[in-house]
Amino acid sequence: MNSPKAPPVIALLTDFGTRDQFVGVMKGVIAGICPRARTIDLSHDIEPQNVAQGAFVLHVSRRYFPDETVFVCVVDPGVGTERRPVAVRAGGSWFVGPDNGLLYPEWESRTPRTDDAIVELDNPDFWLDEVSGTFHGRDIFAPVAAHLASGAAATEMGAYVTDLAGLSIARPKPLDDGSTQLEVLHVDRFGNLVTNMRSDALPDETGTVTFSIGGVEAAGVQTNFASSEELIAVAGSSGYIELAAPGGSAAEALDAGLGATVIMRVGDNS
Amino acid sequence: MNSPKAPPVIALLTDFGTRDQFVGVMKGVIAGICPRARTIDLSHDIEPQNVAQGAFVLHVSRRYFPDETVFVCVVDPGVGTERRPVAVRAGGSWFVGPDNGLLYPEWESRTPRTDDAIVELDNPDFWLDEVSGTFHGRDIFAPVAAHLASGAAATEMGAYVTDLAGLSIARPKPLDDGSTQLEVLHVDRFGNLVTNMRSDALPDETGTVTFSIGGVEAAGVQTNFASSEELIAVAGSSGYIELAAPGGSAAEALDAGLGATVIMRVGDNS
Amino acid sequence: MNSPKAPPVIALLTDFGTRDQFVGVMKGVIAGICPRARTIDLSHDIEPQNVAQGAFVLHVSRRYFPDETVFVCVVDPGVGTERRPVAVRAGGSWFVGPDNGLLYPEWESRTPRTDDAIVELDNPDFWLDEVSGTFHGRDIFAPVAAHLASGAAATEMGAYVTDLAGLSIARPKPLDDGSTQLEVLHVDRFGNLVTNMRSDALPDETGTVTFSIGGVEAAGVQTNFASSEELIAVAGSSGYIELAAPGGSAAEALDAGLGATVIMRVGDNS
Repeated sequence: MNSPKAPPVIALLTDFGTRDQFVGVMKGVIAGICPRARTIDLSHDIEPQNVAQGAFVLHVSRRYFPDETVFVCVVDPGVGTERRPVAVRAGGSWFVGPDNGLLYPEWESRTPRTDDAIVELDNPDFWLDEVSGTFHGRDIFAPVAAHLASGAAATEMGAYVTDLAGLSIARPKPLDDGSTQLEVLHVDRFGNLVTNMRSDALPDETGTVTFSIGGVEAAGVQTNFASSEELIAVAGSSGYIELAAPGGSAAEALDAGLGATVIMRVGDNS
Repeated sequence: MNSPKAPPVIALLTDFGTRDQFVGVMKGVIAGICPRARTIDLSHDIEPQNVAQGAFVLHVSRRYFPDETVFVCVVDPGVGTERRPVAVRAGGSWFVGPDNGLLYPEWESRTPRTDDAIVELDNPDFWLDEVSGTFHGRDIFAPVAAHLASGAAATEMGAYVTDLAGLSIARPKPLDDGSTQLEVLHVDRFGNLVTNMRSDALPDETGTVTFSIGGVEAAGVQTNFASSEELIAVAGSSGYIELAAPGGSAAEALDAGLGATVIMRVGDNS
Repeated sequence: MNSPKAPPVIALLTDFGTRDQFVGVMKGVIAGICPRARTIDLSHDIEPQNVAQGAFVLHVSRRYFPDETVFVCVVDPGVGTERRPVAVRAGGSWFVGPDNGLLYPEWESRTPRTDDAIVELDNPDFWLDEVSGTFHGRDIFAPVAAHLASGAAATEMGAYVTDLAGLSIARPKPLDDGSTQLEVLHVDRFGNLVTNMRSDALPDETGTVTFSIGGVEAAGVQTNFASSEELIAVAGSSGYIELAAPGGSAAEALDAGLGATVIMRVGDNS
């Protein structure tokens, strides 16, 4: 939908929070290199250093952004150590960040294209003059993203490589009693518990699928939050099953958070 | 003051918070449809599902935005149920959101113009291809706003209707003893308690108007926060009387919040 | 790096938080006056009315923004009183805000240029029509910044003056026992304690400099946060020495915050 003259879009995903100047100075750096770029905050409140949560939020969000969006993704517990800085081209967008698994789901799940690429960023000409040991978001990733948005060639920025650090996000796990063990991957501002079960991968007998957490069973699989039940399962907007407490917070009501276990049972509920 | 070539402005008001990706993906959708648009965050921290607070914040803010701003307003406890999605044209701006009272004050208080309109959004051509049951901000309201900002005709988007769901915001209420009962409609980040009493509607004998909360009387009606008093009444920047604790938080000092009662007395203070 | 046609950049630094509509209406005002301007949030979470913290955050951030950026800085406990509104030209950028010390470090530390200037803003033609007693960010500073970004002449906006209110930020203080007393000027979202000791001003014998807080000694001067130590000193990305608890929050672990005392010792550690 972008016309050729549309301003480039740079989306930012970090665990930096918005209290400090970190995100603002990244945008200052971007404005200096690519003044036409629009920046969009995807989220800056990934749990500090929680790479898996960052990868999940990126993965459920990216399809809502226009082609050619440059994503700057910085959840980077190993900043300043040996982990590589990379730029990944997948599905017609660029993803710039540390090679620590954060970008892996985008690469793994891409629909192959001829321009797919992984670039190990090693050319400091595209970085700030001084590179600190603790803030590569500002010193390496933001400038690289701004140069990509300006049309600079990734081939100049580093060597093409073929491997990317993996990431193990918990997958639904079959249990001996026929049920399936799920895990909470994200808790949103409303206290909804987002599991790792894709709504479109539910077994066919959807009507008889049940979800429970800590022994509490959630009602049905609903399509929205309007319900008089205390706990419901919803086919959430991110594409995954969520547990929700209508009008309240499921996380608070159940004292449950990231990593909590949810049990899915199919069929015979007796 | 906008020149014809000024980028369109889309202002966002929600209860989504900024922790999650919700607002970011709305902006991604907007960037895909109307790349020239500038988005401005009005607030995303309306108390979850508090339609009245959202309507109040919108109402005190909108006059500071340029004509033709498109406001996307999503405080939507009934998402996915029968409440209608609407676009309201009032005072030369568009307001897009659920028809649950949130937009009513803008419609009710408008200076009539020939282009006033209420459109019930029912043409999915202007929505995302897939519409979830829980996130119409992303799937309906953001795309409609972006299409409006791009110059698409609202007549294509749905049927013109004449009614809008009402909203009862508490108004100042005369009591038998001659005093007036006010209500706190908003608490700001500084802990100032914003009441429902318009500063420009105070009785003429301003000097003798007093405000009290929980038996504690506030000093004067001040024009700024500089005071050595513990609690003051201020003609606030939003146009309403606020109670403030200079150098501190009135909300904390008084343990008072949204919905708290404030008593106004005029004249004889003996 | 800005081409002549690059959109003007207006950076905002305030203690307004992002919960309320304050920042959003400032951007609405800016969009009305200078539609081409890009706004960047530097931070809105300066501790309420903490002028020194605001000055520090501005000071460590500004060099990452392009020339000609207009900074709107509002940490303004004296709003509505006699303190002057000013626009300061220093180092090729404009700084607009209250004359209460907030902008002093930018002026004091500037590399002199022929266009250096301090303008006392007294021409209401460049303000909103109505000026409240409590929100000059919206009514004076945002409109002045937008007019400057639009190319309006500062000479029209007020009288050139030569003095600016000072600000005393605590400096490292030599103690009788040969050690140096530092102070925590900022605590970031990760709980890192940023001191007032510039990393590039450390004594030459860097290897033997030690930092301690509340009797707890921090390990080494590290270049990044990767460490198995419980408390480390890091040459932080802002240019100042920070105390950090790798993988956790030093502020929480030590129950320390803004204003806490850090002791630096050089040389003989026995």
